Amino acid sequence: MKIYNEIIYKPIGIINSPFKEAKGTPIQPTAAKGVDGEITIFNDYIEGLTDLEGFSNIILLYHFHLSGKALLKIKPFMDDRTHGIFATRAPSRPNPIGFSIVRLVNICNNKLHIKDIDIIDGTFLLDIKPFIPEFDIREAKKTGWIKNNIHKLTNSKDDGRFLK
Amino acid sequence: MKIYNEIIYKPIGIINSPFKEAKGTPIQPTAAKGVDGEITIFNDYIEGLTDLEGFSNIILLYHFHLSGKALLKIKPFMDDRTHGIFATRAPSRPNPIGFSIVRLVNICNNKLHIKDIDIIDGTFLLDIKPFIPEFDIREAKKTGWIKNNIHKLTNSKDDGRFLK
Repeated sequence: MKIYNEIIYKPIGIINSPFKEAKGTPIQPTAAKGVDGEITIFNDYIEGLTDLEGFSNIILLYHFHLSGKALLKIKPFMDDRTHGIFATRAPSRPNPIGFSIVRLVNICNNKLHIKDIDIIDGTFLLDIKPFIPEFDIREAKKTGWIKNNIHKLTNSKDDGRFLK
Repeated sequence: MKIYNEIIYKPIGIINSPFKEAKGTPIQPTAAKGVDGEITIFNDYIEGLTDLEGFSNIILLYHFHLSGKALLKIKPFMDDRTHGIFATRAPSRPNPIGFSIVRLVNICNNKLHIKDIDIIDGTFLLDIKPFIPEFDIREAKKTGWIKNNIHKLTNSKDDGRFLK
């Protein structure tokens, strides 16, 4: 078996948003309704966008370039208690990959106009996937520690606690 | 601005499943209902699992280790026409990151028993995130080319077309 000590990816584009620093950035797209952003896809990858405009919602995977060293137990923005990093969506993960489902407004050449962006300006994009309800929606019976904290979503903002 | 030519990640664990090769593997968790799998988390990361068991559904990000070179236009399993890779969920992506939402049955030390697995045995895991309806569910107004092909989901299987 091939052992992977390292998996190497390359950015396919860059995400621009009104959020120039961690502090004050919304913590989820559902808490950033209507906020406009733009993605610039690098030239090598433009052909891969063909037919994407048919989808109203897209999944973005990106690199949390500002997050500090990986922390295995953290206090997330929406709770005063500590939880394992994999039970949270905090950025200080062993592999700092961000995940956001945003609205796709339109595509003009290599520029994607998106809405509901909760991503810091200058973030590198790793992948785009179409959001497909029949693939991606679940009825979740249990939502752990977040269940009694979900009311804090809209008012919770990044406060910089996971910066380098 | 720091330029990222390469972003380096490390596996945090390994996924075991009944699917020993690409051919015949279900193409989405929603087409793999009840299929059991096991994740082994490497020792360095076990502490990060704290409180994850409170969630019934988890998001897995993993490396498509068997996929061949990146293709920008491909014919996906569910259509006879060609589409841009970013308008599909095919594995032959510029950054071959897989995304599956599976059911979490239980966690025993560093082993996660999961269900609804559509992942090939021996795949390296990059990240786990809790699935949270208030973060992750969208009403999608448009689902592009897949709309008229969604009936093919259950009967579509991987046929090895994206292998190295």
